[in-house]
Amino acid sequence: MTAAAEQAATSGEQQHQQPSEAAEQQALDGEQVVTPWDVAGGADGKIDYNKLVSQFGCQTIDTALVARIERLTGRPAHPFLKRGIFFAHRDLTELLDAHERGEPFYLYTGRGPSSEALHLGHLVPFMFTKWLQDAFKVPLVIQLTDDEKFLWKGLSVEEARRLARENCKDIIACGFDVARTFVFSDFEFVGGAFYRNIARIQRCVPMNQVRGIFGFTQEDNIGKIAFPAVQAAPAFPDTFPHMFGDRKDVRCLIPCAIDQDPYFRMTRDCASRMGHHKTALIESRFFPALQGESGKMSASDTTSAIFVNDTPKDIRSKVNKYAFSGGGFTVEEHREKGANLDVDVPWKWLNFFLEDDARLAQIGADYSSGRMLTGEIKGELVGVLVEMVERHKAARAAVTDEIVDAFMAVRPMPNLWG
Amino acid sequence: MTAAAEQAATSGEQQHQQPSEAAEQQALDGEQVVTPWDVAGGADGKIDYNKLVSQFGCQTIDTALVARIERLTGRPAHPFLKRGIFFAHRDLTELLDAHERGEPFYLYTGRGPSSEALHLGHLVPFMFTKWLQDAFKVPLVIQLTDDEKFLWKGLSVEEARRLARENCKDIIACGFDVARTFVFSDFEFVGGAFYRNIARIQRCVPMNQVRGIFGFTQEDNIGKIAFPAVQAAPAFPDTFPHMFGDRKDVRCLIPCAIDQDPYFRMTRDCASRMGHHKTALIESRFFPALQGESGKMSASDTTSAIFVNDTPKDIRSKVNKYAFSGGGFTVEEHREKGANLDVDVPWKWLNFFLEDDARLAQIGADYSSGRMLTGEIKGELVGVLVEMVERHKAARAAVTDEIVDAFMAVRPMPNLWG
Repeated sequence: MTAAAEQAATSGEQQHQQPSEAAEQQALDGEQVVTPWDVAGGADGKIDYNKLVSQFGCQTIDTALVARIERLTGRPAHPFLKRGIFFAHRDLTELLDAHERGEPFYLYTGRGPSSEALHLGHLVPFMFTKWLQDAFKVPLVIQLTDDEKFLWKGLSVEEARRLARENCKDIIACGFDVARTFVFSDFEFVGGAFYRNIARIQRCVPMNQVRGIFGFTQEDNIGKIAFPAVQAAPAFPDTFPHMFGDRKDVRCLIPCAIDQDPYFRMTRDCASRMGHHKTALIESRFFPALQGESGKMSASDTTSAIFVNDTPKDIRSKVNKYAFSGGGFTVEEHREKGANLDVDVPWKWLNFFLEDDARLAQIGADYSSGRMLTGEIKGELVGVLVEMVERHKAARAAVTDEIVDAFMAVRPMPNLWG
Repeated sequence: MTAAAEQAATSGEQQHQQPSEAAEQQALDGEQVVTPWDVAGGADGKIDYNKLVSQFGCQTIDTALVARIERLTGRPAHPFLKRGIFFAHRDLTELLDAHERGEPFYLYTGRGPSSEALHLGHLVPFMFTKWLQDAFKVPLVIQLTDDEKFLWKGLSVEEARRLARENCKDIIACGFDVARTFVFSDFEFVGGAFYRNIARIQRCVPMNQVRGIFGFTQEDNIGKIAFPAVQAAPAFPDTFPHMFGDRKDVRCLIPCAIDQDPYFRMTRDCASRMGHHKTALIESRFFPALQGESGKMSASDTTSAIFVNDTPKDIRSKVNKYAFSGGGFTVEEHREKGANLDVDVPWKWLNFFLEDDARLAQIGADYSSGRMLTGEIKGELVGVLVEMVERHKAARAAVTDEIVDAFMAVRPMPNLWG
């Protein structure tokens, strides 16, 4: 069938991209909602991350843990770690204990390819994962869930596969080490050992459990109901025999935004029943939309996000027009009271992407005291973003189809560690 | 994990092999129950096939259709067809019309590998499929659903794969043409084009539809809920790019027992939405257990079945001891009233396996009139079965691992038709 026919055939599906009824009710009640598909802040529009940590049952990353990572890797911590952007974890301490004993681990992260180009929020986990790979010298697998976007978003198989390959170029441009990195599309790579692990996981998980975790209903298609096993399987090393043979002792650490936690709670339950180590997680806050942090940036709302293919002019115009400001309403008021950093988006974005700690502290002091104006901090941000996006574009331009093939090849990978 | 641990991990699963509550209630009410997992006759213990045809909405095969097949193939119809063992169909007339116009079709059948050796009931679809392949000179795909038996039966992945390979030898021994036959295990072959068709089918089917068709509940694991798409995908030619490229015009005919009809009703619904021809079906009655036709033979109850590796002594002893007789209680009564062929298992089995029409008619006349005794018809049956099983054993002994590999290789297959 043509791709268009395939999209038409699923027209009844579109409604399932709406928040579930329960999530909608929670949002109406002013409660925050965080699932892999919906993120909405509480009554004040903000995400209460402490509440999330206790609700999900993960742990906060404290300064002692950051210091331990610096000691183990011999490197200063990545800004995302120092500044509490990656702020929560599961079993990271156990993973580091094992690493100190000389036991191997690998990294697993992924991307659902639903848009042509990535936006900056999409880059956050990849930037951090690259740092983890360099710092620990470990293998990495990157899952492109073209099947997920096919099942949820009404894309045709062909379009989902095309976007997976396009997104792969942006991911490679983040600088991963081809000798230690395997990127795969589900539609290409699932089968054999991977499919066997999917079936093992599926047998551990009854329908009522995925209903409880993900809010699936009787109207959801059976692919969605089965899909959590597809996202869980890469957390077990024997899913990748060309990398790890049939070893089961290799641990897995997953860097991700905290909304993906439900998948991996399920994965950890299955791990023990299947004779694997429990998967460890290191989880980030959300990268806020330009309009404020009441949700994630949306790739479908281009005014909420900066994309890696935006021009400098696009960037300047979006930041000036849409970035929510915590500054005073008038220059006089601002000079007197200063800015409210808690809600100011340019300040939050600089915390993600301005690497110079001293400069960041200076901007914080000047802006919150009213010495620096909103226009000025936006100018600082535009400078940082333009430099970052231009650097990304140059790196991506160097990613040929042959390089994509090299990362995606199922190949012997003899030098995965050290 | 070890295979043993894997089996232990799923101990909670065993209960799901029981009939569903609805099926149990129907059976208690004396209604017949026919699903892919449960078969039970009505109040009189017998299957009412006419009722099944009208309940499922398929059509009966009449003598005109049998004559048309003889005309098209230039061969006398197989005994299973002449004697109404393959008695129902869907769209077979349309398929034959297309065949007459020179349009291609292929055959698809399968086996869930849950036992070491096949029993004679398992052979029925394969014997008939071999005849269809020879008569129409068409390609054939044979699915070994090791994943199904893993999800339903608590086997380990390794054990399910081993049984798939063992069963494959028995299937090859039926005489299929290696140039036109592709045998595959789901755990080995699923992936790529196959997985993409699985996802396409899954997106067409909501949870409440599989609940309605198969009786799944909230306690069923998510693999079972997703599995109907795995059994549906081989009905579409682009699941097999090494055989059919990306052709969508190749039709599919599925020979199977009528309890598999639910899978393919679902498949036919998806076919039209996915731009494929609707799958055609040719469906058989059940091969009755030795104890009578209140159910299918069970591979787990060895007294109900003759296996392809039983010895002549086993066969004689099982037939004499367990085969339900429609003869009189005493020789005197039998000589006077004759046998009731409607319930007599040796008579039914001879209808499956005694090829000589004249001899079969003679036995029917002699036995129903009381001239032939129960011991004598059982003796006839033992002769037929021993000859058939010994022939099978010899054929199977010639099936080497290399031959299995040849049938299961994903390979160019240039001469599929004619």
